[in-house]
Amino acid sequence: MRNFVSLVYKCSVLSKHLPFACTQLRLTHNLQIQQWGSNKTHRKIKIPNPLRDIIMADPKIEEILAPLRAAVKEQGDLVRKLKEEKAPEIDVKKAVAELKTRKKVLEDKELSLTPAEELFDRAKMEDLIKRRFFYDQSFAIYGGITGQFDFGPMGCALKSNMIQLWRKYFILQEQMLEVDCSILTPEPVLKASGHVERFADLMTKDLKTGECFRLDHLIKAHLEKIKSEKNTKAELKAEIEDILVKLDGMTADEMAALMQRFNMKSPISGNELTPPIEFNLMFNTQIGPTGLVKGFLRPETAQGIFVNFKRLLEFNQGRLPFAAAQIGNSFRNEISPRSGLLRVREFTMCEIEHFCDSKDHPKFDSVKDTAMLLYSANNQEQGKSAEIVTIGDAVSKGIVNNETLGYFMARIYLYLLAVGIDAKKLRFRQHMGNEMAHYACDCWDAECLTSYGWVECVGCADRSAYDLTQHTKATGIRLAAEKKLSAPKQLEAVEAVANKAAIGKAFKKDAKVINDALAAMDTSALEQLQNKLENDGEFLLNTDNGEFKLTPDLVSVKKSQKTIHVEEIIPSVIEPSFGIGRILYSVLEHNFKMREGDEQRTYFSLPASVAPTKCAVLPLSGNAEFQPFVRQLNEELTNVDVSHKVDDSSGSIGRRYARTDELGVPYAITVDFDTIKEPHSVTLRERDSMGQVRLPLNEVPVVVRDLSDSKILWSNVEAKYPKFEQQESKSVAA
Amino acid sequence: MRNFVSLVYKCSVLSKHLPFACTQLRLTHNLQIQQWGSNKTHRKIKIPNPLRDIIMADPKIEEILAPLRAAVKEQGDLVRKLKEEKAPEIDVKKAVAELKTRKKVLEDKELSLTPAEELFDRAKMEDLIKRRFFYDQSFAIYGGITGQFDFGPMGCALKSNMIQLWRKYFILQEQMLEVDCSILTPEPVLKASGHVERFADLMTKDLKTGECFRLDHLIKAHLEKIKSEKNTKAELKAEIEDILVKLDGMTADEMAALMQRFNMKSPISGNELTPPIEFNLMFNTQIGPTGLVKGFLRPETAQGIFVNFKRLLEFNQGRLPFAAAQIGNSFRNEISPRSGLLRVREFTMCEIEHFCDSKDHPKFDSVKDTAMLLYSANNQEQGKSAEIVTIGDAVSKGIVNNETLGYFMARIYLYLLAVGIDAKKLRFRQHMGNEMAHYACDCWDAECLTSYGWVECVGCADRSAYDLTQHTKATGIRLAAEKKLSAPKQLEAVEAVANKAAIGKAFKKDAKVINDALAAMDTSALEQLQNKLENDGEFLLNTDNGEFKLTPDLVSVKKSQKTIHVEEIIPSVIEPSFGIGRILYSVLEHNFKMREGDEQRTYFSLPASVAPTKCAVLPLSGNAEFQPFVRQLNEELTNVDVSHKVDDSSGSIGRRYARTDELGVPYAITVDFDTIKEPHSVTLRERDSMGQVRLPLNEVPVVVRDLSDSKILWSNVEAKYPKFEQQESKSVAA
Repeated sequence: MRNFVSLVYKCSVLSKHLPFACTQLRLTHNLQIQQWGSNKTHRKIKIPNPLRDIIMADPKIEEILAPLRAAVKEQGDLVRKLKEEKAPEIDVKKAVAELKTRKKVLEDKELSLTPAEELFDRAKMEDLIKRRFFYDQSFAIYGGITGQFDFGPMGCALKSNMIQLWRKYFILQEQMLEVDCSILTPEPVLKASGHVERFADLMTKDLKTGECFRLDHLIKAHLEKIKSEKNTKAELKAEIEDILVKLDGMTADEMAALMQRFNMKSPISGNELTPPIEFNLMFNTQIGPTGLVKGFLRPETAQGIFVNFKRLLEFNQGRLPFAAAQIGNSFRNEISPRSGLLRVREFTMCEIEHFCDSKDHPKFDSVKDTAMLLYSANNQEQGKSAEIVTIGDAVSKGIVNNETLGYFMARIYLYLLAVGIDAKKLRFRQHMGNEMAHYACDCWDAECLTSYGWVECVGCADRSAYDLTQHTKATGIRLAAEKKLSAPKQLEAVEAVANKAAIGKAFKKDAKVINDALAAMDTSALEQLQNKLENDGEFLLNTDNGEFKLTPDLVSVKKSQKTIHVEEIIPSVIEPSFGIGRILYSVLEHNFKMREGDEQRTYFSLPASVAPTKCAVLPLSGNAEFQPFVRQLNEELTNVDVSHKVDDSSGSIGRRYARTDELGVPYAITVDFDTIKEPHSVTLRERDSMGQVRLPLNEVPVVVRDLSDSKILWSNVEAKYPKFEQQESKSVAA
Repeated sequence: MRNFVSLVYKCSVLSKHLPFACTQLRLTHNLQIQQWGSNKTHRKIKIPNPLRDIIMADPKIEEILAPLRAAVKEQGDLVRKLKEEKAPEIDVKKAVAELKTRKKVLEDKELSLTPAEELFDRAKMEDLIKRRFFYDQSFAIYGGITGQFDFGPMGCALKSNMIQLWRKYFILQEQMLEVDCSILTPEPVLKASGHVERFADLMTKDLKTGECFRLDHLIKAHLEKIKSEKNTKAELKAEIEDILVKLDGMTADEMAALMQRFNMKSPISGNELTPPIEFNLMFNTQIGPTGLVKGFLRPETAQGIFVNFKRLLEFNQGRLPFAAAQIGNSFRNEISPRSGLLRVREFTMCEIEHFCDSKDHPKFDSVKDTAMLLYSANNQEQGKSAEIVTIGDAVSKGIVNNETLGYFMARIYLYLLAVGIDAKKLRFRQHMGNEMAHYACDCWDAECLTSYGWVECVGCADRSAYDLTQHTKATGIRLAAEKKLSAPKQLEAVEAVANKAAIGKAFKKDAKVINDALAAMDTSALEQLQNKLENDGEFLLNTDNGEFKLTPDLVSVKKSQKTIHVEEIIPSVIEPSFGIGRILYSVLEHNFKMREGDEQRTYFSLPASVAPTKCAVLPLSGNAEFQPFVRQLNEELTNVDVSHKVDDSSGSIGRRYARTDELGVPYAITVDFDTIKEPHSVTLRERDSMGQVRLPLNEVPVVVRDLSDSKILWSNVEAKYPKFEQQESKSVAA
């Protein structure tokens, strides 16, 4: 995720697809209370079904799209040609900008023509999230801080369950080396990684009040306002549209020109603005009491793994490949955080760095039939849609660069489905050549379709040897592995042979310096030494103590054959990098449901594996006779490690079911008057189907545990136990 | 843990008991490589067994200690008397300092007379911790930062397992509300909590180089040097001893006087030093791009819970009691971090805030028979030892203030034993009146005995309503709960009744201000209003717009009866606060073992529940015939969620057993030539006893899982399966 180009891209993804592009600017008043849901109207958002339009491509729609696809393809071909011809960078850049414009027109059209699968009411979901404290703005009683969120009991449990499942999917199953590194990072580390220089966004400041605005947001809002005005000419409108699309790729100078041309002022005060300022997104502080040691809060967890490479390699007994993983918080001082959990100042990441010398993967076969929606760079450039491809085919056809990358993509896909991402709203989008950082060979983002558009949730990049090389350069410590050669190699070794006795006699106290300098000579220096001694009969040696004349009686050059059994390798790195907050938000959107015929009864259909609480225990009423059974269930569920909650509040059973639904609790056990009778029994209700069965009291804890661990299905339970006949609507009346 | 007095105390605990009080100062050169093990010699540390001297009090030892105990008691009685008489603070302080001196003399004697149970070699353990990368200094390739550590695969897994067990013990079993709050905290929050003003240590700076020294460390080192010099007179030596004991409680002025008296200079450069400077231990930064919003990295996780109190109360349907919990990192910019993991700049805490209106606890009965080593304030003041008491007795005798505090102490005790703390090296020490923060009613620290002395690992404080009150004051938002009264209460309500029409006519544009001021009057102001109106016929009302004369035709005071069904309660808070790094270090020390007769074979006898890896799979040799069985075990262990590691490196089986022992792996499965034969079988070895059994291949995964989950014991396995006869020593030879 330290991919700088990718960072810029992430902004563009978010802003491009915002169905309600907020026309009013979000400010950086930090201590004001802000509604974090950007849109509070009850307008519903059409969520298209991308799979449907792939599977059942409608010929009429395709007819409309055909010319747009052709326009993209034409431009894509041009970009490719320019690159092949090594055309000037400025020409390539212009062509790419035009390619993006055409691509956006096509994708917008595609989305608008896709039949909507369902309507999504973001305001309603945000209301539920706040009301049941899944998460909410931090420090709200102090006015709050934008871009910071506190996870309440439900959000925290969901997040923690997602992380535990991640640990199981990746660390346990792949036997990765998990590390837990410091957040506070000294400056030299982040200089080497490039963050100090390049991890920045452009902003502008109100000259009088000091108010800051993220420059691209300000320009966008300003131009959209002009565009929406009645008396703006069609020509200007078209030009503005063009500018808006190109905005993401613009330099500071280009943006400065726009500010001047359109006479942009502070939208709050009307004051003059500064020219564009580069604002580094890292939080800085001082480590230790002197105030002299500059440090940053890490902007990603990855660097902690790279600086520990040698220890990890040693732990792995010197062998490649191995993967290290880290779960932890990172920090980015966003200029104007927005879109709820999608752009925040403090966030949890799960990152893997897989170090390897070969990019084949021994377990690739086990995933090769996994079919995923892939949106390749080629398809993007050629105006084509994303396609469903098995990862095996994708690798063998060269769409995905190598097995290891493909293996991780499939594992990411399976993990995302397991936590509740809707397969229909999940695609892997390949970075196009021009958006990829210069050191990456291939990069695919797992994107989830939400009401904010396609959101990058997981990046999966082949980063080659870039990071280890950078830290090696900065520290002089070689971050490399040794590999046994299949056959030993013969190498010519050259060394200076000093006549130490003679040197000692000739140079006295300088002898040590001279001997050290001779020992430190590299191949080319040694060649020069030999030449000079043979041809001139002397050599002038430069040392810290000055120049010394050496003659053949004092030193000679010896060549010999050496047998080499190992070679040094700087491993390649494949980096899957998960943004847990973004995945969590997407999971909530994909699982937000309304009961048929009752828009007020909303719920989260979260998979049991990640649901915050697995089970509710509900006594039908406050009747004291129910208490011993509730206590017994409480104890037994605890004994089998099922997280549960007793709800003995006074509401009707129907209202309490509705409450557990809102919390995403998949199962509810109800203790009623039949429970008191022998043999004791209870009802068990499943959230999504609202189906109920009656089963013996003492069997229910293990049944719920097995359901929660996905060891049995609800259909198994329904097959085994009698259906509970009393309908929920009757229960509500009870 | 935000207990300021406690913080100072923590330093004193560490320094007082440091068996190798480092005489050389540790500097704050932040980017230099520092050995984090303060002592690299192989001198062994005697770890006394505190339980033994309690259980088998030796009459001869008691004879020696008797006068020392009497001296403490005499002084303790004096302190008590002075407090009762409300003597001047300075007199109490002096008496307390003397009490501490006598207590230290007694405790040192006690420790020196206690027979040593075992010898502990810290350098050997630290070597193992580094070599097997349990943890190590952060950013070492860049020179490292003091007080920051990276956890490698073994340390990280141990830490993560400890945290998962914590979640199970507290959050799941007690149904606590877990939250996950922001680390970056705006200034006003930490002003209200008192951290901005008071969370500081004293330091002094080299006037020329700017080098910083923690003042108490500097003074201590300087005085110890004088004390150790040959020609120092006995009188001065005794005086220095006295000063050293009193150092912890000294003010800045007292320390400044010492600096002057002993003419202290920088121990590095010999330069002059500044007078004492208060250094706030919080890391500061700016939130947002303006640079105007000051923020800190939280110094504890607790404040995140307090500021969310209203949301949590609402989540709990308005009912008390409830407990919220948080697991996360906190940061303290220590002036000179030392003692490895015990004093660091970045650390993981698990904190619980239990909000309650009554301090009885419904589950107290379930723990009341738990016997623990308690070191009460009374025993400390009376020169007595710690005592083994059941928590039920401790509460009923008033040693521990209340059931809720006692319940948590017992749960803390059980948790610490479960992660591997040695019960013989665990005590609960009560804060004495003079070391308790002014708002706390009672506070007990769980302390673990290590080679650094008694280390505070968990604090358990009854903090009353302090924090919620502070945040209410700062924000004006009432952080309180409502409690239904057992019987409704009649209350007299008083209010000002304004004749709004007449006021409007009389005061025009000031009318609103006047009406608002009348509505805001409290009971005593209303009484005054009524008096003045009745007696003087007028009342002068002060408002922001100036003074206004009100007469009985404009306003009257109305009294009425109101029936109140609920009362407002600011709940009390019981706060158990766990320092995970300190517990982890203590667990490592308590479980560091050497094989009898072979000091080089060291290992960690970690409980399986927290061991980083549960099981090793070892093929006897590189023979290809073993491979299918190794693969099968690998898959089956993964399927039953047992974290394991295949070690097919080339070492002998004995050397590989030794390696798994070093990593604390409790079980090892060996695939050998008998495995190939049908029926396939393997050996299973237990780490601590080195016992081995032979069992069927297909049974071993479930056996290891059940052993790891403590569902069966090793003795059950030994009873069921035949002992494997080949001895380990033979295996080493194999």
